[in-house]
Amino acid sequence: MTPLARRAFLAACRGEEHDTVPVWFMRQAGRSLPEYRAIRERHDFEEVVRTPELAAEVTLQPVRRYGVDAAILFSDIVTPVASLGIGLEIRPGVGPVVDEPFRRPADLARLRELEPEEDLPYVLETVRLLVAELDIPLIGFAGAPFTVASYLIEGGPSKTYDRTKALMFSDEPTWHRLMERLAGITLASLRAQVREGAAAVQLFDSWAGALTPADYERYVLPHSRHVLTELADAGVPMIHFGVGTGELLGLMADAGADVVGVDWRVPLDVARARIPEGVGTQGNLDAAAVLAPWEVVEARVRDVLHRSGGRRDHVFNLGHGVLPTTEPDVLARVVELVHREGRTDGTVGDG
Amino acid sequence: MTPLARRAFLAACRGEEHDTVPVWFMRQAGRSLPEYRAIRERHDFEEVVRTPELAAEVTLQPVRRYGVDAAILFSDIVTPVASLGIGLEIRPGVGPVVDEPFRRPADLARLRELEPEEDLPYVLETVRLLVAELDIPLIGFAGAPFTVASYLIEGGPSKTYDRTKALMFSDEPTWHRLMERLAGITLASLRAQVREGAAAVQLFDSWAGALTPADYERYVLPHSRHVLTELADAGVPMIHFGVGTGELLGLMADAGADVVGVDWRVPLDVARARIPEGVGTQGNLDAAAVLAPWEVVEARVRDVLHRSGGRRDHVFNLGHGVLPTTEPDVLARVVELVHREGRTDGTVGDG
Repeated sequence: MTPLARRAFLAACRGEEHDTVPVWFMRQAGRSLPEYRAIRERHDFEEVVRTPELAAEVTLQPVRRYGVDAAILFSDIVTPVASLGIGLEIRPGVGPVVDEPFRRPADLARLRELEPEEDLPYVLETVRLLVAELDIPLIGFAGAPFTVASYLIEGGPSKTYDRTKALMFSDEPTWHRLMERLAGITLASLRAQVREGAAAVQLFDSWAGALTPADYERYVLPHSRHVLTELADAGVPMIHFGVGTGELLGLMADAGADVVGVDWRVPLDVARARIPEGVGTQGNLDAAAVLAPWEVVEARVRDVLHRSGGRRDHVFNLGHGVLPTTEPDVLARVVELVHREGRTDGTVGDG
Repeated sequence: MTPLARRAFLAACRGEEHDTVPVWFMRQAGRSLPEYRAIRERHDFEEVVRTPELAAEVTLQPVRRYGVDAAILFSDIVTPVASLGIGLEIRPGVGPVVDEPFRRPADLARLRELEPEEDLPYVLETVRLLVAELDIPLIGFAGAPFTVASYLIEGGPSKTYDRTKALMFSDEPTWHRLMERLAGITLASLRAQVREGAAAVQLFDSWAGALTPADYERYVLPHSRHVLTELADAGVPMIHFGVGTGELLGLMADAGADVVGVDWRVPLDVARARIPEGVGTQGNLDAAAVLAPWEVVEARVRDVLHRSGGRRDHVFNLGHGVLPTTEPDVLARVVELVHREGRTDGTVGDG
């Protein structure tokens, strides 16, 4: 890869000139890859995350396969908070499960500050291994305070987030204190990743889309803004993503992101109109579209490129994570197609 | 209840003059009510649906409790299709599960036409019992073709609908034939409910929000439109609802609905601007907001009323179904508040 191509991802995140639309895939590492499943036959998820050689290897697998423009640290949204010994485990086929969910003010005491060097040495070592190995940018990874809070409060994955919202609505001071602590943990984790060489970060507020814009603004935005504004002096592009966030895109930009990730539900040109100028977009091919025959995939990829309007502040991605049933060869062809046809004409600001 | 108040719900659905904003709640019957849980201790879900006295009783329970302006038939989205003997059961705590999911063209043969009098006699008897008993309108209930298809193809509830989309994208003729059959089943079920006296219907396309607008328009809209346009001569208002459909609201109106149900994610005034004049709105208090202390609930209810702009074509509702943890007294107070403060000033068409 030429030095020029290597910088396309960072240039796009910053809205700087470059020729070819960069592309990577959320969850590009993981279950869709046979070489990942081979590793998981011998090691469980948490073991992979906690073993730098394994975490680095699965981070690199999709880079080799797909020729993407960025790697993303293999980790989980709850990895930092789980390292604090709060009784959280990632159960296969379920997700993060908390033995004693957080529901009372007293639970705040269970969250001490994160000391990345002490609590997450394996994550930092993974970042170091990757930075030494990669000739493309490594994206650091963290869950945003709301999404982490939802796991702690619900005790596991939820469809309705009713306990989370009940706490938010009924005990606002406790809610904000919890979010402040989680913001501190997120920030410490991202800062440490950047210090070790991550060239960008993505803040995953995966479930923020469960909130109304007014609730997002009141209960969540201040804490995500704290993370993003404090991290700004680190000088790396910051991507801010959630699912079902069609009505929150402008607020997620306002939180201080350089790039807002857009899910597949909102056509990219429609999303663009909701995001202020000066902030880029990432997305937004339906992750299920790549299960279609190639002619369909091709048309969908072109549609996303078309709706991106040749702007130089767009990063091509799926609208959510790669589905486990995805055929890796199709993703490789998507990368090729985006690199071949995704030309930026330098447009920014007349979108 | 006075005859004038009795017609508020139908008047709102038709955009006709009336004084007080009408209100009912999706899933107002069911798990949040102790009197419902008492019945379920002795009878399982399917037994309740198939026993007219029980189904009518649980339909009436929230009417007595809350003083809502409409009752909705207690049923399930898959009730009609399950009556065809396709190996579908509703598993407690899981939802609809299909023994052998629909994935090949040959599976189409498993879906014969619905003969409501033969296949769903208990549903029609329930409607008759209710119409004789109620002095408010009864809303007929059906799942829209896409949402029913998603259960048949996935074999159960899904988060990603990847098998559904894979079929849609890879074998479009089979997809459309499946949707045509499901549209016929939905239509037959709704027509029979109206024939027995249902005064309005709600078409639940609960999971349509998983689709991009372009896919909704191509793969789903024609079939929901078939149901709604064929049913139009029955002369009853038709409500069309789905979750996460912020980008689909205009299309769901175009399908032929009189009223579009709006989930809580889209502020009602924003939703209004996406729905053509001549079509009303229903919604959209966050179902989790009623878990909050009363001052918070009150402010949220007023916010929805405020955003409805005094228009006479709005029906107050939650943005999704009542959550099981909901305190019934709070819903009763919400009804009271909407009836006290929800005045229509006759506005329609300047929204």
